[in-house]
Amino acid sequence: MVRPIVFLSDFGLEDEFVGVCHGVMARLAPEAPVIDLTHGVPVGDVLRGALVLADNLPFMPADAVHLAVVDPGVGSVRRAVAVEDPRGGAFVGPDNGVLSLAWAEEPEGLRAHEVTPSGVRSDTFHGRDVFAPAAARLAAGAAVTSLGPRVDPASLVRLERPRASFHGGVASCRVLGVDHFGNVQLVLTKDELRQLGGARLMLRMNGVEYELPVARTFSDVAPGEALVFVDSTGRVAVAVNGGSAAERFGLRRGDPAEVGPGVG
Amino acid sequence: MVRPIVFLSDFGLEDEFVGVCHGVMARLAPEAPVIDLTHGVPVGDVLRGALVLADNLPFMPADAVHLAVVDPGVGSVRRAVAVEDPRGGAFVGPDNGVLSLAWAEEPEGLRAHEVTPSGVRSDTFHGRDVFAPAAARLAAGAAVTSLGPRVDPASLVRLERPRASFHGGVASCRVLGVDHFGNVQLVLTKDELRQLGGARLMLRMNGVEYELPVARTFSDVAPGEALVFVDSTGRVAVAVNGGSAAERFGLRRGDPAEVGPGVG
Amino acid sequence: MVRPIVFLSDFGLEDEFVGVCHGVMARLAPEAPVIDLTHGVPVGDVLRGALVLADNLPFMPADAVHLAVVDPGVGSVRRAVAVEDPRGGAFVGPDNGVLSLAWAEEPEGLRAHEVTPSGVRSDTFHGRDVFAPAAARLAAGAAVTSLGPRVDPASLVRLERPRASFHGGVASCRVLGVDHFGNVQLVLTKDELRQLGGARLMLRMNGVEYELPVARTFSDVAPGEALVFVDSTGRVAVAVNGGSAAERFGLRRGDPAEVGPGVG
Repeated sequence: MVRPIVFLSDFGLEDEFVGVCHGVMARLAPEAPVIDLTHGVPVGDVLRGALVLADNLPFMPADAVHLAVVDPGVGSVRRAVAVEDPRGGAFVGPDNGVLSLAWAEEPEGLRAHEVTPSGVRSDTFHGRDVFAPAAARLAAGAAVTSLGPRVDPASLVRLERPRASFHGGVASCRVLGVDHFGNVQLVLTKDELRQLGGARLMLRMNGVEYELPVARTFSDVAPGEALVFVDSTGRVAVAVNGGSAAERFGLRRGDPAEVGPGVG
Repeated sequence: MVRPIVFLSDFGLEDEFVGVCHGVMARLAPEAPVIDLTHGVPVGDVLRGALVLADNLPFMPADAVHLAVVDPGVGSVRRAVAVEDPRGGAFVGPDNGVLSLAWAEEPEGLRAHEVTPSGVRSDTFHGRDVFAPAAARLAAGAAVTSLGPRVDPASLVRLERPRASFHGGVASCRVLGVDHFGNVQLVLTKDELRQLGGARLMLRMNGVEYELPVARTFSDVAPGEALVFVDSTGRVAVAVNGGSAAERFGLRRGDPAEVGPGVG
Repeated sequence: MVRPIVFLSDFGLEDEFVGVCHGVMARLAPEAPVIDLTHGVPVGDVLRGALVLADNLPFMPADAVHLAVVDPGVGSVRRAVAVEDPRGGAFVGPDNGVLSLAWAEEPEGLRAHEVTPSGVRSDTFHGRDVFAPAAARLAAGAAVTSLGPRVDPASLVRLERPRASFHGGVASCRVLGVDHFGNVQLVLTKDELRQLGGARLMLRMNGVEYELPVARTFSDVAPGEALVFVDSTGRVAVAVNGGSAAERFGLRRGDPAEVGPGVG
């Protein structure tokens, strides 16, 4: 019974880093399909990797082995771990929190093991030498217990989801990311948006205030017009119909934004 | 009998958009191989998506389910459709013409159905919630009739292939695209090139005239020299042997170009 | 008995070049898995392609068919070849040396054949029309002898691995490449590094001298600090913990560098 592997990293696609991990997995689990969730996580952004993994979990095969390598501390004392969730799904990666949002809300019953491979060749590419082999072994049917000594799940590093803070009816948050379309995703959820209410919102971005309509989809506003919408991950985002909100408003990952009710 | 899926979009590869669609398809059709034709269609360029799909059809498995998502009107009134061609091949995507060049020349016998999925979570990511599930169901063996109500094929949006216009023996056209190598593809076909004739052509690009040789391949001219050739899609293109024609001539997608017979 | 295909090129991922080759292979060898090693080889950089292929060979399935297309002389007199190594592994590509480092150290017993396909449609895209079909046929079980006439292995183009030159205890070399993380890989091996010895090195890059520590991994130095390390391919590289060495030192592929013992 082979399991699919879902592979997430900050490796980018210019180099052979992703490809060589695929080769390693094909040697150990030739029958296991590999889904590249993304390799475009910003370099070293562990929290973003954790969010991408957790947000997309419902859309991945239920029994998948998730290989998540965003690992700025590669080769240091941080542990390499594999976590098997009895409800389905296993998670392999560095113990720096990148796996934690995938199981943090329901940690009961987790089985965590350190990954202690032999034959590690590089101190800077554990994706190839540690994590891909472990994921492939799980995909090929190995038990998580075979990978290394047991780890207390309570000792695993856990991240917190970033949250907006509210003061006087205004949400202060950050730009979580800018996507390929130039849409600007905020650290603000659909539920938090409801608190702000209204058909229009006032946004302060880059020191300038804009009043924008809340819409369902891009074409609900005229071409070239900006809008606020709930994106496919349930977060509030700013877009321009047929254009790039990031360019229009000069926004980048990490920039602050304030969101309050509109006047209109 | 599982069918392969060919997946084309303007999603880019920086984000997880492509990967999450792969996950959705793996849940519904775990045995179906997925070929990523390209995810580099310029954002929202429906015509370009339609051309890439149609031009590459002869090289894809004959029974493939083609999933084409270039969808600037996502979530609006445009229909989601699936089109089964009895000669082999099915096409799933928005009814905005992106599918149309793949079957437009021989529409007889097409069976078209609207895709009306349940459980759509997002108004802005129908790739994940509408199109990928429909393509996966077809790939897993479902009949196109099971996806939603029948649509009259004559009502489907159809695009026209762009064409050069000829005046006084000179072709006026546009730059269709610039590829990774800096080759500049023109909206001018091999057959139209024959009309212009000759071993050399006069090209007016960016307001400047150049006389260039017509060659079979890059190394038919000296390193650093420019040439005109018929590219792998049967279109006329400008290249520089060992260099970038786009840089040399300052050309971008959509720029006008005039092509006439050379003097030499 | 289907064999996996490992696919390497300088095609990039913006266009459909890689995808259409996948389609061609899926038609001829639908059961063969394809591993994309990388398509980010710098355009026309045959030596770099050869190094990537050879360096990663140990991590690929032993019986793989390696398809390597870095082919600036496409359509010219350079031969298209397939090389079967009786120790496992086959190699398909242009006879310009891109395959040569994979077998150059042990050429005994190689069986080389020219690839002479019928039905070639394009003089500029032999990846699609010549090499992908040949690789797929081998993957599907065809013998290398079936692809075309025998070629004397001694006649195949061979590249030399680039080497540093040593003068007065100082190594002169070049930047082989800059990766996604901004790490700067030098043409200098782990063994050559040992000759230079010491816990610190003096590097002259871009006309400026820097003394840098030799470390095992990034986090062995403080955040923002630079280091020299042996990378995952066994080459000496310069990195910045949590940053980009390429940016820090203004380095690009091909730039000269001198490396000597440090004072510290």
